Amino acid sequence: MATEQEPMTPPEQPGETPSSSPVPEADEQTAALDEMRDRWRRALADLDNLRKRHAKELERVRAEERARTSAAWLPVLDNLERALAHSDSDPSAVLKGVEAVRDQAVEVLRGLGYPRYEETGVPFDPTRHEVVGVVDTPDAEPNTVAQVVSPGYGADGKQLRPAFVVVSKRQE
Amino acid sequence: MATEQEPMTPPEQPGETPSSSPVPEADEQTAALDEMRDRWRRALADLDNLRKRHAKELERVRAEERARTSAAWLPVLDNLERALAHSDSDPSAVLKGVEAVRDQAVEVLRGLGYPRYEETGVPFDPTRHEVVGVVDTPDAEPNTVAQVVSPGYGADGKQLRPAFVVVSKRQE
Repeated sequence: MATEQEPMTPPEQPGETPSSSPVPEADEQTAALDEMRDRWRRALADLDNLRKRHAKELERVRAEERARTSAAWLPVLDNLERALAHSDSDPSAVLKGVEAVRDQAVEVLRGLGYPRYEETGVPFDPTRHEVVGVVDTPDAEPNTVAQVVSPGYGADGKQLRPAFVVVSKRQE
Repeated sequence: MATEQEPMTPPEQPGETPSSSPVPEADEQTAALDEMRDRWRRALADLDNLRKRHAKELERVRAEERARTSAAWLPVLDNLERALAHSDSDPSAVLKGVEAVRDQAVEVLRGLGYPRYEETGVPFDPTRHEVVGVVDTPDAEPNTVAQVVSPGYGADGKQLRPAFVVVSKRQE
């Protein structure tokens, strides 16, 4: 009779039953559930922290890149001022200096990933050229760049500014 | 008798027992654990995705800021070239143009968050000034900027370059 009564006892004394009976399993599962809930909550907290950290990091990277890019231009300004410092003495010497500064500025842009381009005679490319005029020149290949009004900067998807060009008329 | 046997049946037919008996609780807990594990795994997957997305976003923001900053300088280069285009005709007119370009470059830096400073007579500030010399001038306040050799750019923790200065001697 005692063994037949045993199944009735576990609900009353859950802590003392062997591990194979249903109730300790429930206990273990409660513990497992608690642990899993803990893991889930920690993952959620990690997500939250990651988002906050990332927002700060974006701001930092933005400021850093702005400073880096601006710093690349400082020598251009320095040299421009150096050239102008002698403007009273010899204007033509100053102009030579200023031309060197212009070349330096083009180099800075190349260094930042925006090489200058101003080729004529190349096929018109809508991703790199902005048409500002069309000419009918019999000796030019149709639909090629006849004249560059202002140079373009950039390459391969890193386009800073397209070249403004006059193109030769398409073949009719 | 039938009612006294009832507690014995649940282990054999777990699906049909009332929710208060031990075994269905275990079943429910298994389901709850499964669901919690699911949530946890989804949170981990979210974390992973967020990390990947952030890495890409950082790259994008960096490129975007580089382009934005570089683009701010293009008009400076354009005007420099425009000024030089007339260098054959009137050198002194060209110089006026180049001076305007210099001012424009200073304005670009200010616009990017790096105002220029070159004040003399201000107290020496190690966060903004780099000492390149010391002078002993009886009429100047001790430890102030006597001369600016090259201007500084930036303000309030956004220092692009300190000013290079000559300071007046400290009081002994």
